[in-house]
Amino acid sequence: MSSLRYVIGVDLGGTTVKSGLVSSDGKIHAQVKLPSLENEGPKAVIEQIKRSIKGILADVDGKSVEGIGIGAPGVIEKEGGIVKNPPNLSGWNEIPLGDEIHRSFRMNVEVENDANAAAIAEAKFGAGKKYPNFIFVIWGTGVGGGIISNGKIYRGPSGGAGEIGHISIKYNGLMCNCGAKGCVEAYIGQKHLSSRAAKILKEHPGSKIIQLVGGDLSKIEPLYISQAADAGDKVARDILVEAGTFLGVAIGAVMNTLDFRVSIIGGGISAAGKYVFDAITESVKAHVLTPLRNDSIVVPAKLGNCAGILGAAGLVL
Amino acid sequence: MSSLRYVIGVDLGGTTVKSGLVSSDGKIHAQVKLPSLENEGPKAVIEQIKRSIKGILADVDGKSVEGIGIGAPGVIEKEGGIVKNPPNLSGWNEIPLGDEIHRSFRMNVEVENDANAAAIAEAKFGAGKKYPNFIFVIWGTGVGGGIISNGKIYRGPSGGAGEIGHISIKYNGLMCNCGAKGCVEAYIGQKHLSSRAAKILKEHPGSKIIQLVGGDLSKIEPLYISQAADAGDKVARDILVEAGTFLGVAIGAVMNTLDFRVSIIGGGISAAGKYVFDAITESVKAHVLTPLRNDSIVVPAKLGNCAGILGAAGLVL
Repeated sequence: MSSLRYVIGVDLGGTTVKSGLVSSDGKIHAQVKLPSLENEGPKAVIEQIKRSIKGILADVDGKSVEGIGIGAPGVIEKEGGIVKNPPNLSGWNEIPLGDEIHRSFRMNVEVENDANAAAIAEAKFGAGKKYPNFIFVIWGTGVGGGIISNGKIYRGPSGGAGEIGHISIKYNGLMCNCGAKGCVEAYIGQKHLSSRAAKILKEHPGSKIIQLVGGDLSKIEPLYISQAADAGDKVARDILVEAGTFLGVAIGAVMNTLDFRVSIIGGGISAAGKYVFDAITESVKAHVLTPLRNDSIVVPAKLGNCAGILGAAGLVL
Repeated sequence: MSSLRYVIGVDLGGTTVKSGLVSSDGKIHAQVKLPSLENEGPKAVIEQIKRSIKGILADVDGKSVEGIGIGAPGVIEKEGGIVKNPPNLSGWNEIPLGDEIHRSFRMNVEVENDANAAAIAEAKFGAGKKYPNFIFVIWGTGVGGGIISNGKIYRGPSGGAGEIGHISIKYNGLMCNCGAKGCVEAYIGQKHLSSRAAKILKEHPGSKIIQLVGGDLSKIEPLYISQAADAGDKVARDILVEAGTFLGVAIGAVMNTLDFRVSIIGGGISAAGKYVFDAITESVKAHVLTPLRNDSIVVPAKLGNCAGILGAAGLVL
């Protein structure tokens, strides 16, 4: 009857493993969410992944599942689906996750970096459907990215492409966790945004951010800055506008390198208001070459938390 | 007898048109160099191009010429070989140069941006032969570039990729000719380097640079700074080392975006000593992510002034 195809998409994170049954039209029909148990090491995490996949397979209702796609943190070697040094999974050095999952389920398994998977999701099902070329930026705890070129993910020679968070926007700037100076992530990542807000708020005791965190400045997160900004708080808006301006500098560098016009912004901050996107757009236009300027657009991602599962599914669809 | 193939490579610049008979092993067998007459407008320039090609064809000694490749400034639309807004050819808006030349010579004609052509030359015949992925940087009057990905030029959606000179290395930095702030070209392009040197030299009357320009600071060019540096002049070295450090920041941004390890530096400054390459390398390593750091290398281009003709030839070889 229906000509839809079905696959399983797995979104592996430091806190949870989420698996979903996804059809070729980008709909999620069932979901299983488990703790990833990352502090118990790779074996435990892989067991949780298998458990979540089994949970989906137990309930496919006669549908034939064609394959399994997995989005994971770290650099991924496609051959064998090897996950290398994921930043938030302790004890993982190099784990052949793809082969492990294939052995258990005997179907096609593809593994990809999680930011790349989210970029694929936006390309196939989300805000990037009409754009064959764009940079996807995931702005949350850190700043990650993925490049879609000619409708396909551009992985680079060893799968590490799209690291927009580590583009330096100031040659002698702030020291980043990665060891380099001036990375845009050091300016707009969660930690920096929060500590910058805490500093500024000492002079603005009336800011809504302070109410939202019950007076405890150590509890500031971008989410609260964003909520306060949406409620009209000027301090919060200024912080986010400045951050958006910084992000635009890094996006401009990518646009000039790749001759691209479109950037799609996902991650927690992408839920922020129009003023953030306006700030990013203005900054991108100010930093790209003339032929790119008029066509430059910055659009919010569409898929939110589902991008992980959908992008993973997109690997085998 | 010989299985070599022959094509004509044309290097169109603001001052001269150079054509060469190039064999498939990357040797130039004959050359014709004419003034490009750019101040007389497009028609005159195209006539000079044709004249230079005829000069080569008049002397091919029985060899069969398979095609004509042209490297030109500006953004190039491959279909029709249209040259758009070349910065140093006055009166050119959009000229279908490829079609014009094809009509006259009835053979395969390919047109490409000059920096891209030089990148192709280094990939096929020069310093990039053993590297399938690299960024080629041409550092002279301005700072241009070309991306070789998987052994092929990456042009981007509209042929404008590789504009490394307009990556911002300081978000609120120096104003560039292009209208953006902080472009690396605004820090290390010929004009900036020369005026920076002139400023510094007021406090260093003993510098060799001053001797080389006969005391006339308005005559300073990077070539003289480079010559003075090679002769051991500390002021000159410091200027070039700082410039190399700046270039490394922009190269680092490209490496993190593309997951690349190799950069090849051409243009006038590439003839400078090891200390410049050491400065660039150190800065690149300081700005790329850990997985790229150890393998990062910066190498001088090999083909010098011949890169234009050879790269143009490479378009049809």
